[in-house]
Amino acid sequence: MRAVFQQELSEVQSRLVELASGAEKIMKKASGAFLNSDVSLADEALALADKNEEKALDLDELVIKILATQSPVARDLRILVSALRMSASLERMGSLASHIAAIARYRYPGTAIPDGLRSTFEDMAKIDIELAGKAVALLEHTDVDLAREIQARDEAVDLLHRRVFDVVLSSDWSENAMFTVDVTLASRYFERFADHVVDISSKVSFLQTGEW
Amino acid sequence: MRAVFQQELSEVQSRLVELASGAEKIMKKASGAFLNSDVSLADEALALADKNEEKALDLDELVIKILATQSPVARDLRILVSALRMSASLERMGSLASHIAAIARYRYPGTAIPDGLRSTFEDMAKIDIELAGKAVALLEHTDVDLAREIQARDEAVDLLHRRVFDVVLSSDWSENAMFTVDVTLASRYFERFADHVVDISSKVSFLQTGEW
Repeated sequence: MRAVFQQELSEVQSRLVELASGAEKIMKKASGAFLNSDVSLADEALALADKNEEKALDLDELVIKILATQSPVARDLRILVSALRMSASLERMGSLASHIAAIARYRYPGTAIPDGLRSTFEDMAKIDIELAGKAVALLEHTDVDLAREIQARDEAVDLLHRRVFDVVLSSDWSENAMFTVDVTLASRYFERFADHVVDISSKVSFLQTGEW
Repeated sequence: MRAVFQQELSEVQSRLVELASGAEKIMKKASGAFLNSDVSLADEALALADKNEEKALDLDELVIKILATQSPVARDLRILVSALRMSASLERMGSLASHIAAIARYRYPGTAIPDGLRSTFEDMAKIDIELAGKAVALLEHTDVDLAREIQARDEAVDLLHRRVFDVVLSSDWSENAMFTVDVTLASRYFERFADHVVDISSKVSFLQTGEW
Protein backbone atom coordinates (compact mmCIF):
# COMPACT_ATOMS: atom_id res chain seq x y z
CA MET A 1 0.00 0.00 0.00
CA ARG A 2 2.80 2.39 0.94
CA ALA A 3 4.66 1.60 -2.30
CA VAL A 4 1.53 2.35 -4.32
CA PHE A 5 1.08 5.59 -2.41
CA GLN A 6 4.69 6.66 -3.08
CA GLN A 7 4.15 5.94 -6.75
CA GLU A 8 0.98 8.02 -6.74
CA LEU A 9 2.71 10.91 -4.98
CA SER A 10 5.49 10.86 -7.52
CA GLU A 11 2.87 10.92 -10.30
CA VAL A 12 1.34 14.03 -8.68
CA GLN A 13 4.77 15.61 -8.52
CA SER A 14 5.56 14.92 -12.15
CA ARG A 15 2.19 16.33 -13.20
CA LEU A 16 2.90 19.50 -11.20
CA VAL A 17 6.26 19.79 -12.96
CA GLU A 18 4.47 19.36 -16.29
CA LEU A 19 1.95 22.09 -15.41
CA ALA A 20 4.75 24.45 -14.35
CA SER A 21 6.61 23.72 -17.54
CA GLY A 22 3.36 24.44 -19.41
CA ALA A 23 3.03 27.80 -17.63
CA GLU A 24 6.62 28.62 -18.59
CA LYS A 25 5.96 27.80 -22.26
CA ILE A 26 2.76 29.84 -22.28
CA MET A 27 4.55 32.85 -20.79
CA LYS A 28 7.37 32.50 -23.34
CA LYS A 29 4.91 32.53 -26.21
CA ALA A 30 2.66 35.19 -24.69
CA SER A 31 5.45 37.61 -23.99
CA GLY A 32 6.96 36.93 -27.41
CA ALA A 33 3.56 37.79 -28.88
CA PHE A 34 3.29 40.91 -26.73
CA LEU A 35 6.83 42.20 -27.32
CA ASN A 36 6.92 41.46 -31.07
CA SER A 37 3.24 41.80 -32.05
CA ASP A 38 3.32 38.19 -33.19
CA VAL A 39 -0.24 36.98 -33.57
CA SER A 40 0.59 33.34 -34.28
CA LEU A 41 2.57 33.12 -31.04
CA ALA A 42 -0.44 34.69 -29.31
CA ASP A 43 -2.71 31.98 -30.70
CA GLU A 44 -0.28 29.27 -29.60
CA ALA A 45 -0.23 30.75 -26.09
CA LEU A 46 -4.03 30.80 -25.93
CA ALA A 47 -4.29 27.18 -27.10
CA LEU A 48 -1.64 26.02 -24.64
CA ALA A 49 -3.42 27.80 -21.77
CA ASP A 50 -6.59 25.83 -22.55
CA LYS A 51 -4.58 22.60 -22.45
CA ASN A 52 -2.96 23.56 -19.15
CA GLU A 53 -6.38 24.22 -17.67
CA GLU A 54 -7.51 20.71 -18.65
CA LYS A 55 -4.35 19.21 -17.21
CA ALA A 56 -4.89 21.06 -13.93
CA LEU A 57 -8.42 19.63 -13.70
CA ASP A 58 -7.09 16.14 -14.41
CA LEU A 59 -4.49 16.55 -11.69
CA ASP A 60 -7.17 17.67 -9.23
CA GLU A 61 -9.18 14.53 -10.01
CA LEU A 62 -6.09 12.38 -9.45
CA VAL A 63 -5.47 14.05 -6.07
CA ILE A 64 -9.09 13.49 -5.03
CA LYS A 65 -8.79 9.83 -6.05
CA ILE A 66 -5.65 9.43 -3.95
CA LEU A 67 -7.28 11.15 -0.97
CA ALA A 68 -10.23 8.77 -1.26
CA THR A 69 -8.24 5.55 -1.66
CA GLN A 70 -5.24 6.21 0.60
CA SER A 71 -6.73 8.33 3.39
CA PRO A 72 -3.37 10.04 3.96
CA VAL A 73 -2.61 11.91 7.20
CA ALA A 74 0.03 14.34 8.48
CA ARG A 75 2.65 15.39 5.95
CA ASP A 76 1.28 13.19 3.16
CA LEU A 77 -2.10 14.86 3.49
CA ARG A 78 -0.51 18.31 3.45
CA ILE A 79 1.42 17.45 0.33
CA LEU A 80 -1.80 16.53 -1.45
CA VAL A 81 -3.72 19.60 -0.26
CA SER A 82 -0.76 21.74 -1.35
CA ALA A 83 -0.80 20.00 -4.72
CA LEU A 84 -4.41 21.13 -5.21
CA ARG A 85 -3.43 24.70 -4.45
CA MET A 86 -0.33 24.63 -6.61
CA SER A 87 -2.38 23.21 -9.44
CA ALA A 88 -4.77 26.17 -9.09
CA SER A 89 -1.83 28.62 -9.13
CA LEU A 90 -0.24 26.99 -12.17
CA GLU A 91 -3.53 27.02 -14.05
CA ARG A 92 -3.98 30.68 -13.17
CA MET A 93 -0.44 31.49 -14.35
CA GLY A 94 -1.31 30.06 -17.77
CA SER A 95 -4.49 32.09 -17.78
CA LEU A 96 -2.71 35.35 -16.83
CA ALA A 97 -0.12 34.77 -19.56
CA SER A 98 -2.93 34.12 -22.04
CA HIS A 99 -4.44 37.53 -21.15
CA ILE A 100 -1.11 39.08 -22.18
CA ALA A 101 -1.30 37.14 -25.45
CA ALA A 102 -4.87 38.37 -25.92
CA ILE A 103 -3.75 42.01 -25.61
CA ALA A 104 -1.15 41.39 -28.36
CA ARG A 105 -3.84 39.77 -30.51
CA TYR A 106 -6.20 42.67 -29.96
CA ARG A 107 -3.71 45.32 -31.02
CA TYR A 108 -2.30 43.40 -33.98
CA PRO A 109 -0.89 44.55 -36.41
CA GLY A 110 -0.09 47.44 -34.07
CA THR A 111 1.87 47.11 -30.87
CA ALA A 112 0.51 47.40 -27.33
CA ILE A 113 3.83 48.74 -26.03
CA PRO A 114 4.87 52.38 -26.34
CA ASP A 115 8.62 52.94 -26.86
CA GLY A 116 9.14 54.41 -23.39
CA LEU A 117 8.12 51.15 -21.74
CA ARG A 118 9.63 48.58 -24.09
CA SER A 119 12.69 47.75 -22.00
CA THR A 120 10.61 47.62 -18.80
CA PHE A 121 8.32 45.02 -20.32
CA GLU A 122 11.26 43.11 -21.79
CA ASP A 123 12.71 42.85 -18.28
CA MET A 124 9.36 41.86 -16.77
CA ALA A 125 8.84 39.13 -19.36
CA LYS A 126 12.38 37.85 -18.90
CA ILE A 127 12.01 37.59 -15.11
CA ASP A 128 8.56 36.02 -15.33
CA ILE A 129 9.87 33.32 -17.69
CA GLU A 130 12.85 32.80 -15.38
CA LEU A 131 10.50 32.53 -12.37
CA ALA A 132 8.36 29.93 -14.12
CA GLY A 133 11.56 28.00 -14.87
CA LYS A 134 12.50 28.19 -11.19
CA ALA A 135 9.04 26.85 -10.30
CA VAL A 136 9.72 23.86 -12.56
CA ALA A 137 13.08 23.26 -10.87
CA LEU A 138 11.61 23.75 -7.39
CA LEU A 139 8.84 21.24 -8.01
CA GLU A 140 11.40 18.78 -9.39
CA HIS A 141 13.97 19.10 -6.59
CA THR A 142 12.22 20.96 -3.70
CA ASP A 143 15.32 23.07 -3.09
CA VAL A 144 14.65 25.64 -0.36
CA ASP A 145 17.42 27.99 -1.58
CA LEU A 146 15.57 28.22 -4.85
CA ALA A 147 12.52 29.39 -2.87
CA ARG A 148 14.59 32.30 -1.54
CA GLU A 149 15.79 33.27 -5.02
CA ILE A 150 12.18 33.26 -6.19
CA GLN A 151 11.24 35.74 -3.47
CA ALA A 152 14.02 38.10 -4.57
CA ARG A 153 13.11 37.90 -8.26
CA ASP A 154 9.46 38.59 -7.45
CA GLU A 155 10.55 41.81 -5.76
CA ALA A 156 12.30 42.78 -9.01
CA VAL A 157 9.00 42.26 -10.85
CA ASP A 158 7.17 44.42 -8.30
CA LEU A 159 9.68 47.22 -8.90
CA LEU A 160 9.18 47.00 -12.67
CA HIS A 161 5.41 47.01 -12.12
CA ARG A 162 5.74 50.23 -10.11
CA ARG A 163 8.02 51.68 -12.79
CA VAL A 164 5.24 51.18 -15.35
CA PHE A 165 2.95 53.35 -13.21
CA ASP A 166 5.68 55.92 -12.61
CA VAL A 167 6.11 56.28 -16.37
CA VAL A 168 2.39 56.34 -17.14
CA LEU A 169 1.62 58.87 -14.39
CA SER A 170 4.58 61.15 -15.14
CA SER A 171 4.04 64.47 -16.90
CA ASP A 172 6.03 63.19 -19.90
CA TRP A 173 3.46 60.53 -20.71
CA SER A 174 1.71 61.55 -23.93
CA GLU A 175 0.42 58.21 -25.19
CA ASN A 176 -3.28 57.73 -25.83
CA ALA A 177 -5.69 55.96 -23.48
CA MET A 178 -5.44 52.69 -25.42
CA PHE A 179 -1.74 52.41 -24.57
CA THR A 180 -2.46 53.39 -20.99
CA VAL A 181 -5.09 50.68 -20.62
CA ASP A 182 -2.94 48.02 -22.31
CA VAL A 183 0.20 48.65 -20.29
CA THR A 184 -1.77 48.91 -17.03
CA LEU A 185 -3.40 45.53 -17.54
CA ALA A 186 -0.33 43.80 -18.99
CA SER A 187 1.82 44.98 -16.12
CA ARG A 188 -0.77 43.72 -13.65
CA TYR A 189 -0.80 40.29 -15.35
CA PHE A 190 2.99 40.03 -15.29
CA GLU A 191 3.00 40.97 -11.61
CA ARG A 192 0.30 38.45 -10.64
CA PHE A 193 2.08 35.72 -12.60
CA ALA A 194 5.19 36.27 -10.46
CA ASP A 195 3.06 36.33 -7.26
CA HIS A 196 1.80 32.85 -8.02
CA VAL A 197 5.36 31.54 -8.30
CA VAL A 198 6.00 32.97 -4.82
CA ASP A 199 2.85 31.26 -3.52
CA ILE A 200 4.05 27.95 -4.94
CA SER A 201 7.51 28.38 -3.44
CA SER A 202 6.00 29.19 -0.02
CA LYS A 203 4.07 25.94 -0.15
CA VAL A 204 7.15 23.93 -1.10
CA SER A 205 9.18 25.59 1.68
CA PHE A 206 6.43 24.85 4.15
CA LEU A 207 6.42 21.19 3.20
CA GLN A 208 10.21 21.06 3.57
CA THR A 209 10.69 23.07 6.73
CA GLY A 210 7.27 23.20 8.39
CA GLU A 211 7.52 27.00 8.46
CA TRP A 212 5.75 29.58 6.33
CA MET B 1 -18.39 8.97 14.21
CA ARG B 2 -20.90 9.93 11.52
CA ALA B 3 -22.62 12.37 13.88
CA VAL B 4 -19.29 14.02 14.67
CA PHE B 5 -18.55 14.23 10.97
CA GLN B 6 -21.92 15.87 10.23
CA GLN B 7 -21.24 18.38 12.96
CA GLU B 8 -17.82 19.13 11.49
CA LEU B 9 -19.26 19.55 8.00
CA SER B 10 -21.84 21.96 9.31
CA GLU B 11 -19.05 23.90 11.04
CA VAL B 12 -17.24 24.13 7.68
CA GLN B 13 -20.42 25.36 6.07
CA SER B 14 -21.04 28.03 8.67
CA ARG B 15 -17.46 29.23 8.35
CA LEU B 16 -17.87 29.49 4.57
CA VAL B 17 -21.04 31.53 5.11
CA GLU B 18 -19.10 33.77 7.50
CA LEU B 19 -16.30 34.26 4.95
CA ALA B 20 -18.83 35.09 2.22
CA SER B 21 -20.53 37.52 4.51
CA GLY B 22 -17.10 39.03 5.23
CA ALA B 23 -16.45 39.43 1.49
CA GLU B 24 -19.83 41.15 1.12
CA LYS B 25 -19.04 43.59 3.95
CA ILE B 26 -15.59 44.33 2.53
CA MET B 27 -17.05 45.06 -0.90
CA LYS B 28 -19.72 47.31 0.64
CA LYS B 29 -17.08 49.34 2.45
CA ALA B 30 -14.60 49.30 -0.43
CA SER B 31 -17.09 50.46 -3.01
CA GLY B 32 -18.43 53.07 -0.58
CA ALA B 33 -14.85 54.29 -0.20
CA PHE B 34 -14.33 54.26 -3.96
CA LEU B 35 -17.60 55.96 -4.92
CA ASN B 36 -17.53 58.61 -2.17
CA SER B 37 -13.78 59.11 -1.62
CA ASP B 38 -14.26 57.99 1.97
CA VAL B 39 -10.88 57.16 3.42
CA SER B 40 -12.13 55.80 6.73
CA LEU B 41 -14.35 53.30 4.91
CA ALA B 42 -11.29 52.36 2.85
CA ASP B 43 -9.30 51.67 6.01
CA GLU B 44 -12.13 49.57 7.41
CA ALA B 45 -12.25 47.54 4.19
CA LEU B 46 -8.49 46.94 4.31
CA ALA B 47 -8.63 45.82 7.96
CA LEU B 48 -11.58 43.49 7.31
CA ALA B 49 -9.79 41.94 4.33
CA ASP B 50 -6.86 41.04 6.59
CA LYS B 51 -9.28 39.40 9.01
CA ASN B 52 -10.99 37.48 6.23
CA GLU B 53 -7.63 36.18 5.07
CA GLU B 54 -6.90 34.85 8.57
CA LYS B 55 -10.33 33.26 8.76
CA ALA B 56 -9.78 31.56 5.41
CA LEU B 57 -6.50 30.09 6.67
CA ASP B 58 -8.23 28.88 9.84
CA LEU B 59 -10.94 27.24 7.76
CA ASP B 60 -8.30 25.51 5.62
CA GLU B 61 -6.69 24.11 8.77
CA LEU B 62 -10.06 22.85 9.99
CA VAL B 63 -10.69 21.13 6.65
CA ILE B 64 -7.25 19.48 6.74
CA LYS B 65 -7.95 18.29 10.28
CA ILE B 66 -11.27 16.76 9.20
CA LEU B 67 -9.63 15.09 6.19
CA ALA B 68 -7.00 13.60 8.51
CA THR B 69 -9.37 12.37 11.21
CA GLN B 70 -12.42 11.30 9.18
CA SER B 71 -10.84 10.01 5.94
CA PRO B 72 -13.98 10.94 4.00
CA VAL B 73 -14.71 9.46 0.55
CA ALA B 74 -17.09 10.15 -2.35
CA ARG B 75 -19.37 13.14 -1.93
CA ASP B 76 -18.12 14.00 1.58
CA LEU B 77 -14.57 14.22 0.26
CA ARG B 78 -15.68 16.42 -2.66
CA ILE B 79 -17.50 18.74 -0.28
CA LEU B 80 -14.31 19.24 1.71
CA VAL B 81 -12.10 19.74 -1.34
CA SER B 82 -14.65 22.23 -2.67
CA ALA B 83 -14.61 23.99 0.70
CA LEU B 84 -10.87 24.54 0.30
CA ARG B 85 -11.41 26.07 -3.12
CA MET B 86 -14.33 28.21 -2.03
CA SER B 87 -12.29 29.45 0.90
CA ALA B 88 -9.57 30.51 -1.56
CA SER B 89 -12.14 32.31 -3.73
CA LEU B 90 -13.72 34.07 -0.76
CA GLU B 91 -10.32 35.19 0.52
CA ARG B 92 -9.46 36.47 -2.96
CA MET B 93 -12.75 38.38 -3.17
CA GLY B 94 -11.86 40.23 0.03
CA SER B 95 -8.45 40.95 -1.40
CA LEU B 96 -9.83 42.27 -4.72
CA ALA B 97 -12.27 44.51 -2.86
CA SER B 98 -9.42 45.77 -0.71
CA HIS B 99 -7.53 46.77 -3.89
CA ILE B 100 -10.53 48.93 -4.79
CA ALA B 101 -10.39 50.48 -1.32
CA ALA B 102 -6.66 51.07 -1.80
CA ILE B 103 -7.29 53.03 -5.01
CA ALA B 104 -9.75 55.27 -3.11
CA ARG B 105 -7.16 55.74 -0.36
CA TYR B 106 -4.48 56.61 -2.89
CA ARG B 107 -6.52 59.31 -4.60
CA TYR B 108 -7.95 60.81 -1.43
CA PRO B 109 -9.02 63.63 -1.06
CA GLY B 110 -9.60 63.48 -4.82
CA THR B 111 -11.81 60.95 -6.53
CA ALA B 112 -10.68 58.04 -8.71
CA ILE B 113 -13.86 58.16 -10.78
CA PRO B 114 -14.39 60.62 -13.64
CA ASP B 115 -17.99 61.86 -14.05
CA GLY B 116 -18.53 59.94 -17.28
CA LEU B 117 -18.08 56.61 -15.50
CA ARG B 118 -19.76 57.27 -12.16
CA SER B 119 -23.04 55.52 -12.91
CA THR B 120 -21.22 52.56 -14.50
CA PHE B 121 -19.19 52.02 -11.34
CA GLU B 122 -22.27 52.54 -9.15
CA ASP B 123 -23.97 49.73 -11.06
CA MET B 124 -20.92 47.49 -10.89
CA ALA B 125 -20.57 47.99 -7.14
CA LYS B 126 -24.29 47.37 -6.61
CA ILE B 127 -24.21 44.09 -8.54
CA ASP B 128 -20.99 42.91 -6.90
CA ILE B 129 -22.48 43.49 -3.43
CA GLU B 130 -25.65 41.72 -4.55
CA LEU B 131 -23.57 38.80 -5.90
CA ALA B 132 -21.68 38.47 -2.63
CA GLY B 133 -25.06 38.43 -0.84
CA LYS B 134 -26.21 35.65 -3.18
CA ALA B 135 -23.03 33.71 -2.37
CA VAL B 136 -23.94 33.96 1.32
CA ALA B 137 -27.47 32.68 0.61
CA LEU B 138 -26.19 29.94 -1.69
CA LEU B 139 -23.75 28.66 0.91
CA GLU B 140 -26.51 28.72 3.51
CA HIS B 141 -29.20 26.96 1.46
CA THR B 142 -27.42 25.42 -1.60
CA ASP B 143 -30.25 26.52 -3.88
CA VAL B 144 -29.44 25.67 -7.50
CA ASP B 145 -31.78 28.34 -8.91
CA LEU B 146 -29.69 30.91 -7.08
CA ALA B 147 -26.65 29.56 -8.96
CA ARG B 148 -28.40 30.39 -12.25
CA GLU B 149 -29.22 33.92 -11.10
CA ILE B 150 -25.57 34.39 -10.18
CA GLN B 151 -24.49 33.45 -13.69
CA ALA B 152 -26.86 36.05 -15.17
CA ARG B 153 -25.73 38.82 -12.84
CA ASP B 154 -22.09 38.07 -13.60
CA GLU B 155 -22.86 38.65 -17.27
CA ALA B 156 -24.23 42.08 -16.31
CA VAL B 157 -20.90 42.85 -14.60
CA ASP B 158 -18.99 41.74 -17.71
CA LEU B 159 -21.07 44.14 -19.82
CA LEU B 160 -20.32 47.02 -17.43
CA HIS B 161 -16.62 46.08 -17.49
CA ARG B 162 -16.67 46.31 -21.29
CA ARG B 163 -18.53 49.61 -21.09
CA VAL B 164 -15.68 51.05 -19.02
CA PHE B 165 -13.28 50.21 -21.85
CA ASP B 166 -15.68 51.55 -24.49
CA VAL B 167 -15.79 54.86 -22.65
CA VAL B 168 -12.05 55.03 -22.00
CA LEU B 169 -11.15 54.12 -25.58
CA SER B 170 -13.72 56.42 -27.22
CA SER B 171 -12.60 59.65 -28.88
CA ASP B 172 -14.55 61.64 -26.24
CA TRP B 173 -12.31 60.45 -23.43
CA SER B 174 -10.22 63.39 -22.29
CA GLU B 175 -9.29 62.41 -18.74
CA ASN B 176 -5.66 62.15 -17.72
CA ALA B 177 -3.67 58.93 -17.47
CA MET B 178 -4.22 58.69 -13.70
CA PHE B 179 -7.97 58.33 -14.20
CA THR B 180 -7.39 55.87 -17.03
CA VAL B 181 -5.16 53.68 -14.85
CA ASP B 182 -7.53 53.84 -11.87
CA VAL B 183 -10.69 52.96 -13.76
CA THR B 184 -8.94 50.20 -15.71
CA LEU B 185 -7.75 48.48 -12.55
CA ALA B 186 -10.90 49.10 -10.53
CA SER B 187 -13.07 47.71 -13.30
CA ARG B 188 -10.86 44.64 -13.51
CA TYR B 189 -11.16 44.10 -9.73
CA PHE B 190 -14.96 44.40 -9.80
CA GLU B 191 -15.10 41.95 -12.70
CA ARG B 192 -12.82 39.37 -11.01
CA PHE B 193 -14.81 39.66 -7.78
CA ALA B 194 -17.95 38.63 -9.67
CA ASP B 195 -16.06 35.79 -11.42
CA HIS B 196 -15.23 34.26 -8.07
CA VAL B 197 -18.90 34.22 -7.07
CA VAL B 198 -19.58 32.29 -10.29
CA ASP B 199 -16.79 29.84 -9.43
CA ILE B 200 -18.33 29.29 -6.00
CA SER B 201 -21.79 28.78 -7.45
CA SER B 202 -20.42 26.24 -9.98
CA LYS B 203 -18.95 24.24 -7.13
CA VAL B 204 -22.19 24.30 -5.15
CA SER B 205 -24.17 23.24 -8.25
CA PHE B 206 -21.71 20.44 -8.88
CA LEU B 207 -22.13 19.14 -5.36
CA GLN B 208 -25.91 19.28 -5.72
CA THR B 209 -26.35 17.88 -9.24
CA GLY B 210 -23.06 16.16 -10.07
CA GLU B 211 -22.83 18.29 -13.24
CA TRP B 212 -20.62 21.25 -13.98
